[in-house]
Amino acid sequence: MQITLTTDFGQQDPYVGLMKGAIAAINPQAQVIDLSHGVPPQDIMAAGLILQHSIRYFPAGTIHVAVVDPGVGSSRRPILIEFDGSYFVGPDNGVLSVALERKQPSQIIHLSNPTFQLQSISKTFHGRDIFAPVAAHLSLGVPVKEFGEKLDSFVELVVPKVIRQEQQIGGEIVYVDSFGNLFTNIRERDLTGLAKDRLRIVLGPTEIGSLAVNYASVVAGEFVCLFNSWGFLEIAVNKGSARQRTGAKVGDKVAVATIY
Amino acid sequence: MQITLTTDFGQQDPYVGLMKGAIAAINPQAQVIDLSHGVPPQDIMAAGLILQHSIRYFPAGTIHVAVVDPGVGSSRRPILIEFDGSYFVGPDNGVLSVALERKQPSQIIHLSNPTFQLQSISKTFHGRDIFAPVAAHLSLGVPVKEFGEKLDSFVELVVPKVIRQEQQIGGEIVYVDSFGNLFTNIRERDLTGLAKDRLRIVLGPTEIGSLAVNYASVVAGEFVCLFNSWGFLEIAVNKGSARQRTGAKVGDKVAVATIY
Amino acid sequence: MQITLTTDFGQQDPYVGLMKGAIAAINPQAQVIDLSHGVPPQDIMAAGLILQHSIRYFPAGTIHVAVVDPGVGSSRRPILIEFDGSYFVGPDNGVLSVALERKQPSQIIHLSNPTFQLQSISKTFHGRDIFAPVAAHLSLGVPVKEFGEKLDSFVELVVPKVIRQEQQIGGEIVYVDSFGNLFTNIRERDLTGLAKDRLRIVLGPTEIGSLAVNYASVVAGEFVCLFNSWGFLEIAVNKGSARQRTGAKVGDKVAVATIY
Repeated sequence: MQITLTTDFGQQDPYVGLMKGAIAAINPQAQVIDLSHGVPPQDIMAAGLILQHSIRYFPAGTIHVAVVDPGVGSSRRPILIEFDGSYFVGPDNGVLSVALERKQPSQIIHLSNPTFQLQSISKTFHGRDIFAPVAAHLSLGVPVKEFGEKLDSFVELVVPKVIRQEQQIGGEIVYVDSFGNLFTNIRERDLTGLAKDRLRIVLGPTEIGSLAVNYASVVAGEFVCLFNSWGFLEIAVNKGSARQRTGAKVGDKVAVATIY
Repeated sequence: MQITLTTDFGQQDPYVGLMKGAIAAINPQAQVIDLSHGVPPQDIMAAGLILQHSIRYFPAGTIHVAVVDPGVGSSRRPILIEFDGSYFVGPDNGVLSVALERKQPSQIIHLSNPTFQLQSISKTFHGRDIFAPVAAHLSLGVPVKEFGEKLDSFVELVVPKVIRQEQQIGGEIVYVDSFGNLFTNIRERDLTGLAKDRLRIVLGPTEIGSLAVNYASVVAGEFVCLFNSWGFLEIAVNKGSARQRTGAKVGDKVAVATIY
Repeated sequence: MQITLTTDFGQQDPYVGLMKGAIAAINPQAQVIDLSHGVPPQDIMAAGLILQHSIRYFPAGTIHVAVVDPGVGSSRRPILIEFDGSYFVGPDNGVLSVALERKQPSQIIHLSNPTFQLQSISKTFHGRDIFAPVAAHLSLGVPVKEFGEKLDSFVELVVPKVIRQEQQIGGEIVYVDSFGNLFTNIRERDLTGLAKDRLRIVLGPTEIGSLAVNYASVVAGEFVCLFNSWGFLEIAVNKGSARQRTGAKVGDKVAVATIY
């Protein structure tokens, strides 16, 4: 059984290793896959987007653990969700609603049963004390409803929506990867009805260029706009960093306009 | 059988991957868990503290390999320790004594038997050539005493002690994590007898604040002092970095004082 | 069956995790080892050198996947190579020729059979869509020739050669690790016939020192030159960074000269 981990813990400290230890102590056979530990600190939206675009590549039944948890130790609830045959474990702060694209889960459980958690729960590290042990017990076949009482709803967090105005699509940057590629929230289907060969991509006040097929469509150092591996319109620089070149960041506006 | 790795190798180079290759070549079934590869370069104390606070979360029988080894290739001895049913492999430079909190191991072995090491030993990378192969053979059930001759003692490294003076506890920063949280060496038991509601935490000359329960006890950007997941008094900034805010580093003095 | 991954994806984004998901969806039993994800962006030579110096430490039959792929989505071919009982999967851009030290593979296959790839192939992430699935199917025992048509040759990339002039060896820096150690392309065998005790290592115009045996041969902060774990002459600073001290980078010239 696969368990994935998505956190903002980084790689310097033993936090991720401790979660793996807590899992191994309960189910030494569990296979743990690091999805990302480089989520920007406390960036719930980024963690949700990473999960959203990863789920389909994992086998059915995978248990996804997301720990971006600025409210750890406060009254925010730890939850377990079942959706489409896979499982999601994390704090109830919106990260899992982004992961599920606001679709309705089959089950939402408040992790209120201490049986499947460590005996002593710290105030700062529920990844180790609650979420990892829950995932490990789940991977051993403990039924979902054993982990706590059922909830009717969970915290929802809204990914910014694309706005269409006649021949123009308005979106924004929602993720920047470590290559400096700028991911917008604009998908190929958002461009339906627009003339593909007359499109221009505009970042803030600056025209970036037209749509290309791959990075190598332009020479090194040039801007290139394409639909990337998440299905999003991406602004990149071939063999370079669009973040460095533009100074752009999450939330900056991007438009796709038709020229005449 | 679980093998953990704690090193200062970072994630850029193939050093960790090579240790895993050397393990897989001997025991392809061994499960290897990265505890941390972000130990500050040559920081024996940090590696020891990481291990010290991690051991209890791993299953009994786990083999912990620590490679922070500035003396690699010199006369410092490679050793294997058995303690409380778990195993520790690394250079004899104090890292393992910190991990064990200066408790006495059941067995200390000098890794002098070349049978369980690679045929050719480099002068710069005993992680790959000695420690990983030893851990792999150990995970296959080779008895501890086969790895070399018994030693009576090993190098001990002393973690700074907390000093109590009447109504004041004097400690220091011993670890700074990647969030910029400042870990002191002060534990909750060190405060026995002090009035919890009248305590003030002081970093160098600066009063930081009182004791809180979790990060979210204060608003974003404020200092918060709490007992963290290692059981240590920690100075943090909610959704921020106490290291950046204070410029503090390992060794800086921290006091807990009672106010009247 | 072991699968290793060598990429320039870094650890921030979920790219590596997605490759592992794609592998797990096909062969949940495959053991995946991260060799390095810290290859400098688009640095084909560095990735090839990392693999070249790692292969021998992995069990026979290991499948090595290398994804440093600036030409992704263009006409560059995805390939699979069999060499000396191990397997290599990646783009045909020279990375695998460096890994094999320009030796001739037993088989070179163009990955033209879509059966063993994801159904939908993105233009930007063949690591997830082609290379990971191919490695996973290979680990399940699919014969090499099933993956596509045979090729007669693959792209070769030349590692800079060492030049010998009487009593002087001329080489260059080919890799810099995260400790700031400078790896040259000069091996011990290149110094055959030179008087070991009268050698001086020169970086650009600056004399660095003589040959030592290990880092601890000099006091902290001093330069030390030795043959490292890759078998290369390395310029280092004991407990410091030779990169920081010298400002040297890949391509800078290094000479070994005999003094009288």
